[in-house]
Amino acid sequence: MSGKTELDISHLLAARERIRPHVHQTPVQTSASLDALAGARLFFKCENLQRTGSFKYRGATNAVQSLTDEHAARGVATHSSGNHGAALALAARQRHIPAHIVVPRGAVQTKVAAIARYGGEVHVCDDTLDARDARLREVVASTGAHVIHPFNDNRIIAGQGTAAMELLDEHPNLDVIVTPVGGGGLISGSALAARGRGARIEVVGAEPDGADDAAQSIRADTIIDDIEPDTLCDGLRATIGPLTFAVIREFVTDILTADDTQTVNAMREIWHRMKIVAEPSSAVALAIILANQERFADRRVGVVISGGNVDLDNLPWAD
Amino acid sequence: MSGKTELDISHLLAARERIRPHVHQTPVQTSASLDALAGARLFFKCENLQRTGSFKYRGATNAVQSLTDEHAARGVATHSSGNHGAALALAARQRHIPAHIVVPRGAVQTKVAAIARYGGEVHVCDDTLDARDARLREVVASTGAHVIHPFNDNRIIAGQGTAAMELLDEHPNLDVIVTPVGGGGLISGSALAARGRGARIEVVGAEPDGADDAAQSIRADTIIDDIEPDTLCDGLRATIGPLTFAVIREFVTDILTADDTQTVNAMREIWHRMKIVAEPSSAVALAIILANQERFADRRVGVVISGGNVDLDNLPWAD
Repeated sequence: MSGKTELDISHLLAARERIRPHVHQTPVQTSASLDALAGARLFFKCENLQRTGSFKYRGATNAVQSLTDEHAARGVATHSSGNHGAALALAARQRHIPAHIVVPRGAVQTKVAAIARYGGEVHVCDDTLDARDARLREVVASTGAHVIHPFNDNRIIAGQGTAAMELLDEHPNLDVIVTPVGGGGLISGSALAARGRGARIEVVGAEPDGADDAAQSIRADTIIDDIEPDTLCDGLRATIGPLTFAVIREFVTDILTADDTQTVNAMREIWHRMKIVAEPSSAVALAIILANQERFADRRVGVVISGGNVDLDNLPWAD
Repeated sequence: MSGKTELDISHLLAARERIRPHVHQTPVQTSASLDALAGARLFFKCENLQRTGSFKYRGATNAVQSLTDEHAARGVATHSSGNHGAALALAARQRHIPAHIVVPRGAVQTKVAAIARYGGEVHVCDDTLDARDARLREVVASTGAHVIHPFNDNRIIAGQGTAAMELLDEHPNLDVIVTPVGGGGLISGSALAARGRGARIEVVGAEPDGADDAAQSIRADTIIDDIEPDTLCDGLRATIGPLTFAVIREFVTDILTADDTQTVNAMREIWHRMKIVAEPSSAVALAIILANQERFADRRVGVVISGGNVDLDNLPWAD
């Protein structure tokens, strides 16, 4: 079901040029105290400081800016419970075209509000996959909008990879890059960026153990998508797709998992020590580093902080 | 009681060279959505990302690194309920000398813990000014440590000014710089930095209206220090001193005040929109901008985010 990827570093380089006028080149932060805690040297690529508050704006912008005028004219559409929806809404607005975002009723309300704030048209549906797909088909039928999938799309994967590419430009001698894994767009893009620098740099994925479909899929060497996600990492509940799995199986070294308690503790450490707001789905990357210290000991580890969209009135450590 | 300041831009330039190997050059962040909210163009100098989590590390480092070996040998001492104490502790550790920090019993516990973590020796005292001064005298008598005041010290003022100096290097055409005002070290240093670029750039202070001694002192043209501070901005409860007032009366355009509700709202906006952790004492600067929109309309405004040391278990909007 999944062959070789068609993507390589040339697609990332093209994406970078295409999105450059639109995206922030986010800073890389370090923290002596987190290094001491982890026993490693950590380089955090702060995509929580990206426009719309997550790396998703890179892929969405690359996809939207890749469209011909003819394709773009009737707008874009997607399903998303959060960051991809907000990212696509703003990316579409930058091109002065409409964005239709199908959102499940149960989505985090601050994320839905952000989609609307960036000018996206929100189409609410029930919380099942079937309802979501049906609603998206309806929207496309009535608008003629072009569908841009949140991750199973080579334009998206190439765009997401530009974050790791910038990280490696600034710190070329990293030993490992760690990113969270949801649908797999970020880790796929990051792996392609790392491979573009030669084979030496490891790429490790981080998953909540309540949504470990990528880890299971690697072990089974086929996509396992019949899992029932159970994690507060709302950005990581999706299962990987054929295009992302093709990259992951070829180029990703390892997928490690953490439980939500470890992730919430890691999130708190990031806020407390680095003074930045990272969402749970981001913190899982630090969680697996802290839980596997021997694996990363004394190494130079790049970590993509994927997003910072949190409901500040319901912080997970307040429970 | 207060004459002319002896400080000018040359002292800031010297401080910058002295502290350069030790401090972070912090990033300047912008936010399209905060600009829209404020109706102005805002440039945030993120000293919450400075070592020890506040700008105080600049002044403390300048003071500690200015000492002769003979003066430094017996260590340094100060009174502080928070950020200056942590900053002096780390600055002393960098020079391998002891730091004695007199801390009132009622101080924020996370800040006291930070002082100890950076290697400072904590000396607890009662919550009155008399008890504090008595305890500091005892410590100095028994150790011979050199006292470094949190703000009424020209080495401290010069060090704090390096933040605004970096901000102006990156964005030379600012119209205004806004900083919080506690004891006045940050605003004094910032005013000297702005004046060093010519007289064009306004410098505006932001104070909680429950600790508005600087605003009152400007109006009275003499230091008013008999106020009873009542604000959750724990870093802004100190009253200004003769050295900071001398700079403020000469070079600061204006001091505006905000109430704590406005400050907490501004703090939440910073976290939500910029994805950084800023403490209440920092957020008062944005609060006065949002409360005085006509004053700042369409101008280019530099804002120093002074610190990010917050008790994450007791966020002010959770009350």
